[in-house]
Amino acid sequence: MRTYFECIPCFVRQTLDAARRVTEDPAIHERLLRETLRLAAEMPFDKPPPWMGQRIHRRLRELTGQADPYRQAKQEANAHALELYPGLKREIEASANPFCAAVRMAIAGNIIDLGAKSHLADDEIHAAIEHAVDSPIDEMAVNALHRRIQEAGDILYLADNAGEIVFDRLLIEQMSLERVTVVVKGAPIINDATRADAEAAGLCELVQVIDNGSDVPGTILEMCSAEFRQRFEQADLIIAKGQGNYETLSEADDRIVFLLKVKCPIIARDIGIEVGQLAIRTSDSSDDPQGHTRLNANAER
Amino acid sequence: MRTYFECIPCFVRQTLDAARRVTEDPAIHERLLRETLRLAAEMPFDKPPPWMGQRIHRRLRELTGQADPYRQAKQEANAHALELYPGLKREIEASANPFCAAVRMAIAGNIIDLGAKSHLADDEIHAAIEHAVDSPIDEMAVNALHRRIQEAGDILYLADNAGEIVFDRLLIEQMSLERVTVVVKGAPIINDATRADAEAAGLCELVQVIDNGSDVPGTILEMCSAEFRQRFEQADLIIAKGQGNYETLSEADDRIVFLLKVKCPIIARDIGIEVGQLAIRTSDSSDDPQGHTRLNANAER
Repeated sequence: MRTYFECIPCFVRQTLDAARRVTEDPAIHERLLRETLRLAAEMPFDKPPPWMGQRIHRRLRELTGQADPYRQAKQEANAHALELYPGLKREIEASANPFCAAVRMAIAGNIIDLGAKSHLADDEIHAAIEHAVDSPIDEMAVNALHRRIQEAGDILYLADNAGEIVFDRLLIEQMSLERVTVVVKGAPIINDATRADAEAAGLCELVQVIDNGSDVPGTILEMCSAEFRQRFEQADLIIAKGQGNYETLSEADDRIVFLLKVKCPIIARDIGIEVGQLAIRTSDSSDDPQGHTRLNANAER
Repeated sequence: MRTYFECIPCFVRQTLDAARRVTEDPAIHERLLRETLRLAAEMPFDKPPPWMGQRIHRRLRELTGQADPYRQAKQEANAHALELYPGLKREIEASANPFCAAVRMAIAGNIIDLGAKSHLADDEIHAAIEHAVDSPIDEMAVNALHRRIQEAGDILYLADNAGEIVFDRLLIEQMSLERVTVVVKGAPIINDATRADAEAAGLCELVQVIDNGSDVPGTILEMCSAEFRQRFEQADLIIAKGQGNYETLSEADDRIVFLLKVKCPIIARDIGIEVGQLAIRTSDSSDDPQGHTRLNANAER
């Protein structure tokens, strides 16, 4: 997905939010703000928004000397999600359609996104998970995803954020574990999950976990490691979580199924659903014969 | 008032809104957006936000070749307000406190601000005017303003926007007309009132109307004409309408009374009231012994 003009004020807001979250020094706030403005003035708008996110957060880490400023927030999100995990696991097992229940919870967990939102209270996570059980979802697309998971020999699961990755585990546990590889980021970026978070979620004991070699808050293939790119090319099915992966991979290929909670009006317009909805987009969704190419039909307006 | 960091994303949003309002050419949208980002990256943050507004809208006029892109919007706002005028005039005359009713309507008219908001429907104006009658207002400050108007020999009334200026007329008609001079902008800027709008509102037949020689969406004295500055210095009382005048004059002197509807959280914080409220701020407001210096007590946070 390209960067829309509307993304630009949002970059500036996110820069301020992030700078204030990470340091109280107003000189760093101002410096990062001015640097972001200069960078945005020259950025190629055909790049996806996470291209800019990477640059803003790299610079923030440099200016503050903090290699992983969201470490504590990530640990707290993991701990909070792990508290919820046993109850949700029982809820899924008791459900008439455990796979669909797990999909809902995995998508609901995508609310834990400190790029889209600078602060998130525990009760917002609770509300999102409770809301997910009753939220409308494209059940045809869920069924199609289920079929594809059963057919695929090699499944890549591109994780998104810390905390959220615990909810991903609920969905991954619905799959044949030996066929699944979970992918985390290669270095800290915002609250995106890294290997430490996959470990905290207990995933390293269940499935293979690799990293993509990159600190982009999404998946820009040319910025990922050669090893990851090879795994990406070989996979039969790629489950990509969250807005960042949608923004960076939406035009890639039809092996990808996107699972995300829509948090911004630009993505909502691009996908064609409303903000707050649970989105599942797959190229063979039976109720949508045009498949995911439809997703990219909306030009700048 | 200085430019707060939070004003910067808003500049970018306003640039996009304005560019899209004035032209459908995406090349101009992009060019103006990039120029605004470059300018914002270097701007002195001790300047008030209208300093930037002037530059953005000047450039938009240059790029589109339209000297007064909001002319039609201004005419429509005047015409719509003039339709409401006779009924509101009767309402004021029937009121127990006609001066207070006129103050409320003049402030409510400040909703017609195409800088703060790119589109405004007629029914939003209706709702604002109806809402104004019941809105809480600082009646001590209204009474203090009434006393100062009665005592002042030379009153400058700094108008804000087209359309709104018709509601200003309702308040001006509560004063001794020979003592009042209405000030409009010296050149088109957003939907700010110029002489044409004062004429449309019927003010030129009632009171002296001058312009300030400037195209700033507010009043930056050093950018105004020498003639206006002299009038400003001589005035006993200056009634300044709208956010733009508050942003540019809030630290000027205690002869100024600000009347505005608060449309942005930064101004709300700076003034110390909530968004949407009717604000009247005067240095001798009896319930506020610290006067308007309190307004400027909030530092960047």
